[in-house]
Amino acid sequence: MGSTWGKNIKLSLFGESHGAGIGITIDGLPAGVELDLDLIKFEMQRRATGKNELTTARKEADTFEILSGYFNGYTTGAPLSILIRNRDQQSRDYSQIKNIARPAHADYTGYKRYDGYNDYRGGGHFSGRLTAPVVFAGAVAKQILKQKGIHIGTHIKSIKDLKDRDFCEKDLNMEVFKKLSEKQLPFLDETLESLSREKILQAKSRCDSLGGVIECSIIGMKPGIGNPFFNSIESQLAGLMYSIPAVKGVEFGAGFGITDLFGSEANDDIYMDGEQVKTITNNNGGVLGGITNGMPINFKVAIKPTPSISKAQKTINMKTNEETEFKIVGRHDPCIVPRALVVVEAMAAIGILDFLMVS
Amino acid sequence: MGSTWGKNIKLSLFGESHGAGIGITIDGLPAGVELDLDLIKFEMQRRATGKNELTTARKEADTFEILSGYFNGYTTGAPLSILIRNRDQQSRDYSQIKNIARPAHADYTGYKRYDGYNDYRGGGHFSGRLTAPVVFAGAVAKQILKQKGIHIGTHIKSIKDLKDRDFCEKDLNMEVFKKLSEKQLPFLDETLESLSREKILQAKSRCDSLGGVIECSIIGMKPGIGNPFFNSIESQLAGLMYSIPAVKGVEFGAGFGITDLFGSEANDDIYMDGEQVKTITNNNGGVLGGITNGMPINFKVAIKPTPSISKAQKTINMKTNEETEFKIVGRHDPCIVPRALVVVEAMAAIGILDFLMVS
Amino acid sequence: MGSTWGKNIKLSLFGESHGAGIGITIDGLPAGVELDLDLIKFEMQRRATGKNELTTARKEADTFEILSGYFNGYTTGAPLSILIRNRDQQSRDYSQIKNIARPAHADYTGYKRYDGYNDYRGGGHFSGRLTAPVVFAGAVAKQILKQKGIHIGTHIKSIKDLKDRDFCEKDLNMEVFKKLSEKQLPFLDETLESLSREKILQAKSRCDSLGGVIECSIIGMKPGIGNPFFNSIESQLAGLMYSIPAVKGVEFGAGFGITDLFGSEANDDIYMDGEQVKTITNNNGGVLGGITNGMPINFKVAIKPTPSISKAQKTINMKTNEETEFKIVGRHDPCIVPRALVVVEAMAAIGILDFLMVS
Amino acid sequence: MGSTWGKNIKLSLFGESHGAGIGITIDGLPAGVELDLDLIKFEMQRRATGKNELTTARKEADTFEILSGYFNGYTTGAPLSILIRNRDQQSRDYSQIKNIARPAHADYTGYKRYDGYNDYRGGGHFSGRLTAPVVFAGAVAKQILKQKGIHIGTHIKSIKDLKDRDFCEKDLNMEVFKKLSEKQLPFLDETLESLSREKILQAKSRCDSLGGVIECSIIGMKPGIGNPFFNSIESQLAGLMYSIPAVKGVEFGAGFGITDLFGSEANDDIYMDGEQVKTITNNNGGVLGGITNGMPINFKVAIKPTPSISKAQKTINMKTNEETEFKIVGRHDPCIVPRALVVVEAMAAIGILDFLMVS
Repeated sequence: MGSTWGKNIKLSLFGESHGAGIGITIDGLPAGVELDLDLIKFEMQRRATGKNELTTARKEADTFEILSGYFNGYTTGAPLSILIRNRDQQSRDYSQIKNIARPAHADYTGYKRYDGYNDYRGGGHFSGRLTAPVVFAGAVAKQILKQKGIHIGTHIKSIKDLKDRDFCEKDLNMEVFKKLSEKQLPFLDETLESLSREKILQAKSRCDSLGGVIECSIIGMKPGIGNPFFNSIESQLAGLMYSIPAVKGVEFGAGFGITDLFGSEANDDIYMDGEQVKTITNNNGGVLGGITNGMPINFKVAIKPTPSISKAQKTINMKTNEETEFKIVGRHDPCIVPRALVVVEAMAAIGILDFLMVS
Repeated sequence: MGSTWGKNIKLSLFGESHGAGIGITIDGLPAGVELDLDLIKFEMQRRATGKNELTTARKEADTFEILSGYFNGYTTGAPLSILIRNRDQQSRDYSQIKNIARPAHADYTGYKRYDGYNDYRGGGHFSGRLTAPVVFAGAVAKQILKQKGIHIGTHIKSIKDLKDRDFCEKDLNMEVFKKLSEKQLPFLDETLESLSREKILQAKSRCDSLGGVIECSIIGMKPGIGNPFFNSIESQLAGLMYSIPAVKGVEFGAGFGITDLFGSEANDDIYMDGEQVKTITNNNGGVLGGITNGMPINFKVAIKPTPSISKAQKTINMKTNEETEFKIVGRHDPCIVPRALVVVEAMAAIGILDFLMVS
Repeated sequence: MGSTWGKNIKLSLFGESHGAGIGITIDGLPAGVELDLDLIKFEMQRRATGKNELTTARKEADTFEILSGYFNGYTTGAPLSILIRNRDQQSRDYSQIKNIARPAHADYTGYKRYDGYNDYRGGGHFSGRLTAPVVFAGAVAKQILKQKGIHIGTHIKSIKDLKDRDFCEKDLNMEVFKKLSEKQLPFLDETLESLSREKILQAKSRCDSLGGVIECSIIGMKPGIGNPFFNSIESQLAGLMYSIPAVKGVEFGAGFGITDLFGSEANDDIYMDGEQVKTITNNNGGVLGGITNGMPINFKVAIKPTPSISKAQKTINMKTNEETEFKIVGRHDPCIVPRALVVVEAMAAIGILDFLMVS
Repeated sequence: MGSTWGKNIKLSLFGESHGAGIGITIDGLPAGVELDLDLIKFEMQRRATGKNELTTARKEADTFEILSGYFNGYTTGAPLSILIRNRDQQSRDYSQIKNIARPAHADYTGYKRYDGYNDYRGGGHFSGRLTAPVVFAGAVAKQILKQKGIHIGTHIKSIKDLKDRDFCEKDLNMEVFKKLSEKQLPFLDETLESLSREKILQAKSRCDSLGGVIECSIIGMKPGIGNPFFNSIESQLAGLMYSIPAVKGVEFGAGFGITDLFGSEANDDIYMDGEQVKTITNNNGGVLGGITNGMPINFKVAIKPTPSISKAQKTINMKTNEETEFKIVGRHDPCIVPRALVVVEAMAAIGILDFLMVS
């Protein structure tokens, strides 16, 4: 039941990498939202494959058909549902490899979870491809948030040992966010672009892969949004981030680094910036007691190196339990961080919108 | 609505730091579980205050009264509900400080969220005191998990710059877990005990506070438990961890460190250990595609320094929006990491039990 | 998990008839609601026992203690939790009868559901006594609804073959509702009061019991509240009504009677009453497509005769599966309809409030 | 958010009468269920239109495409999602009538709920057409229930004043259920078939419509399934029944009729039928305290006369608030009871399956 989410905005995700298609149904959207389809397509394009040498060669236009909930240019209030047909799934013979558990993939866990009935082709329902409909939902959510003055931006904080600086105040505005969203490798320190490209291509040439960290910031949040305990801002956003395949860490504000500080350093002192309550530092990432304090919500997400690599790896045949060696052939990204940025933003947008739907 | 949780096991948490009491109702527990009340008390004691110089002087016996769901020594299947009366709340005059937002506390966010109607005394419903009923629920969950061969252990991974080693294979058994649970400052490297005690007391003497990192491991999980996407093991556990006040980071397996590795290093190769499928490394922390692979579930949780410090801090009066300086007087922990260990275990136990209740 | 409810307003019900006490936790209430405790007590009194010869002799003051969520006369936004101690549970010896399944009670079903671990004393968690905390929650909900101009009223539509008339337009106002709420046997046709009292006492004297039908009306609802399909007004209210022990039927508007009409008779023609859209008839009970149309929400609830009767009945010993005959001794209501009215109103209030909490 | 349902089996319904199509996503199904597509098609056919003179002339093959969750003949455990394209939506000009509120339809309530943005063509998302995907989900659920020995049957209890007898013991078996499912007008008293056909056609010829009552029985339920209070068998099933457009009443066992009995008559005495615990009567419809007692679950559902009639009706223009008279032209069923039988069964199957998914 992991493909359904939500309290006020409900998502239902479906599809497999090599099946008929993938899609999502979003229930609970307000009626009367004018959808900017070009913006949605732009967002989908940020995640799309086959664009350049940094991404898998699988070409998926990710053309979506809106099945329901949209009429005369506006959301109707009924469930908004889309279908993205799969097009470029290579009709390769999977029978030989279907019982080989690819290391760091969900092959073995899916096999055990579903008694061997799961669709194993290309990872099936576990495929990163399923994030395409999430990006659609996120693009819709973003449009609603935008009307409320809320904007979401991301940059690459690191790719392996190439480390960008953190977001600082001057970056936290729509213009910078927009500029970042248009880049293929959005670092704040632009010198890292070519360095990281090289690093990724080098890993690719060695049949290897890289991971990295994404920093996300949500600006324009009023104070007083969220809840204590189980439905805190952090609980909701972290739960959504961990729904993205390949995420292995989520931290808010200073995150793990806050444990290196004394309380007197970690505590964000409060002051008045004109009429507005602000904190001098933002070690708490805009959230206290699970509720926004009006400062930007900042968090970082760790993305593991793409598990699909062409190097030989040790594993087992799940049916016979025999050990074997295995090389993944086929198309894959040497680093999914650049394509994951918009997925992180989408999940953040959905998570925040859900909080705003209660009176 | 943040005080209610669950899919199969439902929690409903209530109470305030200085109200009549605190408690929890747990719905969905199996009937016929024999409760070991001594074990529950032992767990509650691990979190309790007033034990020594490392914790706040507020003495709360945390004596719980079982109100329902328990009959003749066994759970009945009806909601299990407990009440813990507040005893040692100092009847100090809060009227002077009620509008002062303590930095890094939920005072300001609670004020905005609840339009000034929240109970501000001692943090009210936001108080860390609310984790006492969570520990009760966790202790019950642990007893059920134990019958299924599942055990949960924690150690202090770090207090400020004092860093313990990670759990390794030889630590991952009931005996070590038990030994750790009996210590006040459970490090794997025992030389850190006295060093950390000193460090904490030093911070206390300087009117300051410390944070740290807790490592948790869940052993005995069969492969195939969990779900992809929104109800992944990581989503569920991270959501619960972020329900603990003061948590600012959660990472699984190698966590953020996995981004420093090549894919070929990060991928956990699979082998047969006799009849059992295992991985050589456990960088994925026992979870792939949101589902267990049978390896221990490992994760780390960052606990921020106690926000309550006796140093002067800059803040505002929430009613007048005037800037002011403020020193917190009264009792508080210089470092809550030692008391938070059992809370992390409790949340983990609840989260895992919830997964096991579906057929 | 049947004791937890809600989407926006969450209820968690606990307790047993002969345990320490019963109570409820309500999460999601708005902060700043001034509670009229006298009104709450009045409502609790409507349900209370021991008042007269029509109710069981068990005397329960149903004195509630507010444990949390209430501060300085207002709700705080944190969970509102109450505890009602059990006082007059007769410490009778249950050991002899604990395995006897009382016909039309939940003894056998509870025994099977909870493998014999359920608290059997006085019906345990299945006891109608658990509706006392529901009435508390309903009384709180009513106060919030009242501020929005929404009022809920009930009358006894029938006790066995004594049939009252239906609500008509002149009855649907606060004054009539208030008057009805103050009566012990609230019929619109007041001549039925003494007739029904006689009928109930006659049944009692014959060791038998009676059921009846309650009609409920909710006025002041704006059009456009509710949802199609699974979260329709009818789905939500019917689900709540069927949560009341002893309910066996729920119908909206003309209900089952609508099937006796032609479409041309059943359809409620629409007209303008000044500025207001109204329908000439209200066969649809104020709901179309699961959503309010601004007309009163009308529904009827069938309450079965009290299953506890002092006549000999055939049943079995659940442990030995031997057939036996059994007479219930002890205190019980010959007809619970008069005490159920306020429970129906409470459930309606909770169900409606939940709809109003979304923006 | 009314189009999403479920605790263990989750449904997400989408689509509009005149949009691209309609469909459903079912999350939480067990993996490895072999789907009998012919049986599914048979069930869909029972609900389909255009079959004969009793149903609307709109011809919808209701051909479904499985989009996901199905592989090599079995469910995969991932969400099962289907799409039914709309084909025969008449591309009539709706612009003239779009602001006319059809009496007893959801036009006005949808207009208010969604601020006029709802798709008004053919009722949009409120259309009875949306029950087609529900029948698909029900057919899948039935196959899983069948493996557990659980079967669901319905007959027409009444069409207007033509009243069939109730199910009795000899009817409650697979063979009778199957035979009933194959009939167009399934009465137990077969003489009612031609009488009801005539009655329906007569109403049709008079531009009018009829309603009726459906009786449903679920056999093969073990005792001990369900929950007290909010998630009782009755709450869950009634909530689902009221999700079916046109339902105005739901009663279990003797239903409203139980209020005409003395307790001594209403109580179902318990006896042993060999090894099996049974009750002599089944006035409680197989449920006590919200939990099954092993007797058949019996309930009745009132279906209102089709609101679409060709007679002139009084109503308003929703935009101008002017009163007007209106005749519905176009295709519609004179009585939807025959097509609703399989929808009632489907909802029952889904509701019961959901209970069986917990351990």
